[in-house]
Amino acid sequence: MSYAELTHAELAALRESLEQEYARHCAKELALNMARGKPAAAQLELSLPLLDTVDASSDLFAEDGTDCRNYGVMDGIPEAKRLMASIMDHDPRNVCVFGNSSLNIMYDLVSHGFLHGYLGEKPWRELKDVSWLCPVPGYDRHFAITELFGIKMIPVRMNENGPDMDEIEALVRENDAIKGIWCVPQYSNPGGVTYSNDTVARLASMPCAATDFRIFWDNAYCVHHLYDTRQAHVADIAEACEKAGNPNRYFKFASTSKVTFPGAGIAAVAASEENIAQIKKRVSIQTVGYDKINQLRHVRFLKDAQGISEHMKKHAEIIRPKFELVARMLEEGLSDTGCASWSNPDGGYFVSFDGLPNTAKRTVALAKGAGVTMTGAGATWPYKEDPEDSNIRIAPTLPPLEELEQAMEVFVCCVKLAAIESLLA
Amino acid sequence: MSYAELTHAELAALRESLEQEYARHCAKELALNMARGKPAAAQLELSLPLLDTVDASSDLFAEDGTDCRNYGVMDGIPEAKRLMASIMDHDPRNVCVFGNSSLNIMYDLVSHGFLHGYLGEKPWRELKDVSWLCPVPGYDRHFAITELFGIKMIPVRMNENGPDMDEIEALVRENDAIKGIWCVPQYSNPGGVTYSNDTVARLASMPCAATDFRIFWDNAYCVHHLYDTRQAHVADIAEACEKAGNPNRYFKFASTSKVTFPGAGIAAVAASEENIAQIKKRVSIQTVGYDKINQLRHVRFLKDAQGISEHMKKHAEIIRPKFELVARMLEEGLSDTGCASWSNPDGGYFVSFDGLPNTAKRTVALAKGAGVTMTGAGATWPYKEDPEDSNIRIAPTLPPLEELEQAMEVFVCCVKLAAIESLLA
Repeated sequence: MSYAELTHAELAALRESLEQEYARHCAKELALNMARGKPAAAQLELSLPLLDTVDASSDLFAEDGTDCRNYGVMDGIPEAKRLMASIMDHDPRNVCVFGNSSLNIMYDLVSHGFLHGYLGEKPWRELKDVSWLCPVPGYDRHFAITELFGIKMIPVRMNENGPDMDEIEALVRENDAIKGIWCVPQYSNPGGVTYSNDTVARLASMPCAATDFRIFWDNAYCVHHLYDTRQAHVADIAEACEKAGNPNRYFKFASTSKVTFPGAGIAAVAASEENIAQIKKRVSIQTVGYDKINQLRHVRFLKDAQGISEHMKKHAEIIRPKFELVARMLEEGLSDTGCASWSNPDGGYFVSFDGLPNTAKRTVALAKGAGVTMTGAGATWPYKEDPEDSNIRIAPTLPPLEELEQAMEVFVCCVKLAAIESLLA
Repeated sequence: MSYAELTHAELAALRESLEQEYARHCAKELALNMARGKPAAAQLELSLPLLDTVDASSDLFAEDGTDCRNYGVMDGIPEAKRLMASIMDHDPRNVCVFGNSSLNIMYDLVSHGFLHGYLGEKPWRELKDVSWLCPVPGYDRHFAITELFGIKMIPVRMNENGPDMDEIEALVRENDAIKGIWCVPQYSNPGGVTYSNDTVARLASMPCAATDFRIFWDNAYCVHHLYDTRQAHVADIAEACEKAGNPNRYFKFASTSKVTFPGAGIAAVAASEENIAQIKKRVSIQTVGYDKINQLRHVRFLKDAQGISEHMKKHAEIIRPKFELVARMLEEGLSDTGCASWSNPDGGYFVSFDGLPNTAKRTVALAKGAGVTMTGAGATWPYKEDPEDSNIRIAPTLPPLEELEQAMEVFVCCVKLAAIESLLA
């Protein structure tokens, strides 16, 4: 029965019973974590053979003759560029494979716009105001970068097709301080939304007052499907931008952090020829080159797009049951209450959860008190300020199934308790 | 016989014979390279066992229980911090081990001062003028970073004790736009100079108009000795700065790029507790962490300071004969001419060569014409502008001995030819 239909007395009674349940959870002294999108140990084991692809007796030369042990090659060995290009829908010539972190490449590109400016445009540090579009709910580490640079972040609501394009078009048409947008276009973090073809086309073609407007296209989950039969494939932003006559508008990012090893993967950026030329020029000052031996390992282990696809199916087998468990427990525990909604993603790493307004912080605090760490409430919004205090990101991949079940029991209890507290307040 | 004592006719005759020799070199169609400080293939082979320290069956947990395969740990696993601390003369708690490139850490720290400011000081982007001290001859990649940020570079002459401290003290006392200095304090690039204790103490204690002045202490060759019996060990800048009451004045850098594999090594920064805290804060926004598996490889292969020292002796055995060959050929070919001087380093990767004024560019061009690539003339000065056009950096490590001998024959011939052309002009 929906909480909204309960009397004050019925709610108070329910609260008492939930408080008892909560006390029982606390007594278990759990220490469970659903905070970050980390692969589980079983997933990491899938990539152990990668460590055997290179040893002291290996051929350590790239296909173009580069000695991968020595200095040289700024933008990745050819076979690594081809591998990353295959999952980024891009011409390998305009892909750079760098170090282990796509986030670091994004940071460097925001820094680049700020310090040096894109393609001859004025560096943003010389401007009075710089703003950025932040689809919400979104990824806290994206927001942390733009916040560090003092860039004003403008939240834009996500819907089932991506960010609200009417709002975005109206904003960028008028305001030349808006220099970019954060996008996780496929299985978005945390909503699991894949941008529709129409959304991609409108982002690519919309008139922008800022001639140096950039779409930061973080396709972090491009091959991270949960189901064989329901695989999203977001339209290619590069093709759309070219078609619209805005070939320099986007930067695409991808990495193998959640394909092989987080921290020991390889990351890449793909862009127009002009953008890539400018990136290479700056990077050649920034470093003498990235880890080419690790690029070799990845090519030898993953081989090609087909190899990656097969490998990702093994990941899906491990994490799909976790997502299904979360969906089932939310459904069973909360669907009747009328006080929550959540996403049922076909890929990616997260479930986006919305409780009643003004309950997210309380829910996360209650869970913490019972030994279950969630992503902080508000983290999915710029400045960690969720105006409704309703959104919580659930990251189900790290805990083993049994622990996840315990954690979700606690979470459901906390959601209900926070909802009733709010209704009774 | 010194060229200065020759008559015009004698010089002209010598030129003709040198031109004939030069033509013979050109006819060989050589393709030799003494441009960059790259280890030779034989040196790279020394570290191949590093690749066997981690395989699919390895324990991949750090000593504190961290799963090195997954996300987490921003500043390096404890055993990697200890390893790098041992060659950096530093407390491991204030060492961060990051990715493969110490140059990238330096770039990020210049960027940090520029964008965000150090320890609450005003970011340099808000200042009208920012200047930097550049000991010359120096490292071109250092100068490229400060040039990219539009920082005005002030050359300061090196002598046998390090940079000219009288000049530096006078400059930093008056000019608060001077925010830093590039230093390669041991076996300097390219001069091979190790800063004297007095130089270190003066750098640490000199009054600076800029309260956010920083010494970028790139101890790239801290363990790169050529001789067992003549090992330099530069005084600890951290200790000197603490003693002088300027504990935040320095950043120390080191890497294993020329210990294990260039590009696939590990790099570190060491600094005061306050500086390290600020670095960690920024880096935690910039990336989700660096390659901890590669850190494990390095710890397991190099073990400790003693292990590194033993390993570096093997490097020395390979490159010492190359340095000795260069010294011998310069001595035999040029000492009588009175038109050249050069360094005889006990470590590091370079020989610094000075010809007559206005001959360096011509010498390098002549060598290029005969198939021998040198570092560009001027590269050892900011903006690539050597006011005397006399300094050339010789990098003898990459070519095998036999090729090096050929290359040096060509070089000596070109030096003499350029000198005589200049004397006859």
